[in-house]
Amino acid sequence: MTLALDYGQHSAIYNMLSLGIASMTFTAFFLWFARDRVLPRYRTAIMVSASVVSIAAYHYFRMYDSFNKAAGEMTATGGYDLNVAEYNVGYRYVDWFLTVPLLLVEVVAVLALARAVQSSMLKRLVPAAALMIALGYPGDARLDNVFGLALQPSVWGLLSTIPFLYILYVLLFELSKSLERQSDAVKKKVTALRILLFASWGVYPISFIANMSAAAPTADGFMLREVGYTIADITAKCVFGLIIYSIARIKSAEDSKEFAASEFKD
Amino acid sequence: MTLALDYGQHSAIYNMLSLGIASMTFTAFFLWFARDRVLPRYRTAIMVSASVVSIAAYHYFRMYDSFNKAAGEMTATGGYDLNVAEYNVGYRYVDWFLTVPLLLVEVVAVLALARAVQSSMLKRLVPAAALMIALGYPGDARLDNVFGLALQPSVWGLLSTIPFLYILYVLLFELSKSLERQSDAVKKKVTALRILLFASWGVYPISFIANMSAAAPTADGFMLREVGYTIADITAKCVFGLIIYSIARIKSAEDSKEFAASEFKD
Repeated sequence: MTLALDYGQHSAIYNMLSLGIASMTFTAFFLWFARDRVLPRYRTAIMVSASVVSIAAYHYFRMYDSFNKAAGEMTATGGYDLNVAEYNVGYRYVDWFLTVPLLLVEVVAVLALARAVQSSMLKRLVPAAALMIALGYPGDARLDNVFGLALQPSVWGLLSTIPFLYILYVLLFELSKSLERQSDAVKKKVTALRILLFASWGVYPISFIANMSAAAPTADGFMLREVGYTIADITAKCVFGLIIYSIARIKSAEDSKEFAASEFKD
Repeated sequence: MTLALDYGQHSAIYNMLSLGIASMTFTAFFLWFARDRVLPRYRTAIMVSASVVSIAAYHYFRMYDSFNKAAGEMTATGGYDLNVAEYNVGYRYVDWFLTVPLLLVEVVAVLALARAVQSSMLKRLVPAAALMIALGYPGDARLDNVFGLALQPSVWGLLSTIPFLYILYVLLFELSKSLERQSDAVKKKVTALRILLFASWGVYPISFIANMSAAAPTADGFMLREVGYTIADITAKCVFGLIIYSIARIKSAEDSKEFAASEFKD
């Protein structure tokens, strides 16, 4: 089916996808180069953060191209006729399938918790994240046959919410216990990290619903979804990755006087 | 609407956009590689400078492509019929939205001021910069409906000037206070930095007005805007970033005799 996007709706999606490319790509450059600006024990967290934004950069390049192809040439009235099926929302889900588990690895890695605690947390968080993404996709792509199952998009959305809530529960309650032995400066940053995570992750279901609310996609619903997902992605990946980096810097300075002296001037 | 660009007007924009690509891309290469040529405490400033020109390089590639698409093929008279709406001025605003706050981070980071002073300055400068860019865009893109608001382009320009003046005020007066404990060599460079900043930032509103002055865009107004923005960008990003690098080199030599001995020969 075709959606008539006016000039403003088209510009909003187009410029947000380009903003996504720029934010992901250059946060990736920054984090890859920043790897040796923390102690070796925190480098895994930085490299995983760099991987997340690099993977996302690739997908934003693809989405930008996919959107331009689906939108075609400007019409006589200055708008665009978007072929919805030609825009591949699958890129977002493939991206999330890879990056959301890695984002959880980042959080756990930067805290440098005991190995047993790390492994126990990741064994529960990573499968839940994969399940959350896999269940959301058929709804967002409005697939009407998934291995013989024909569910409403909203039902897929609801199913996907179950592992989503479980992840939030683990991050909120279980992580709090592990935070007790961290310094005040680190606790403050981790609190910022969690607020950010709740705020940005909350935007995903809202964006999903924005496009789900009508029986068929609408131009406004489509635009709100794309803009919402992009803002949430930039917050949850770039801003998140940079806070992880700043936690790693603080912890490096706390762990080693030598590091602190070379990096900071009193 | 379509603007008839003659050969000279088209060439001026086309070559300036390409100059923008070349300047940004290779200043970026230089700065990324120059990172370890200063003491660790100044590397954040260099990496942020490198990020700024990298982000701008991406946007200049996109603007160049967008301009060529909007200009189409050479007409029989040797000119070009530019479809103004198809040239996405949004790239400039997305670029500035990311890079102007980062430019302010550069300045504050290279001075290695006390952490509290840095954080207090950035908390005021960064939101002001974001507001300035966000308010300028609807005017420059001549959007006639922004969340229901229908303002003249010049009104958006005027609104955007308020945070602009605030930033200049903070950089001129508050930064002066923090400069007192810097060496003479550093003071001299920071003065150069500020003159450059005023000179280049002054070109942005002039370019905006050049294209705003007529009720509808004109070929000359469009050309002046594009050429003006590009010259201002190269000055405010490349030249600025290289001065930041030279400040970081001077301060590295001042802070460490070992660094000075390894880098400079008497």
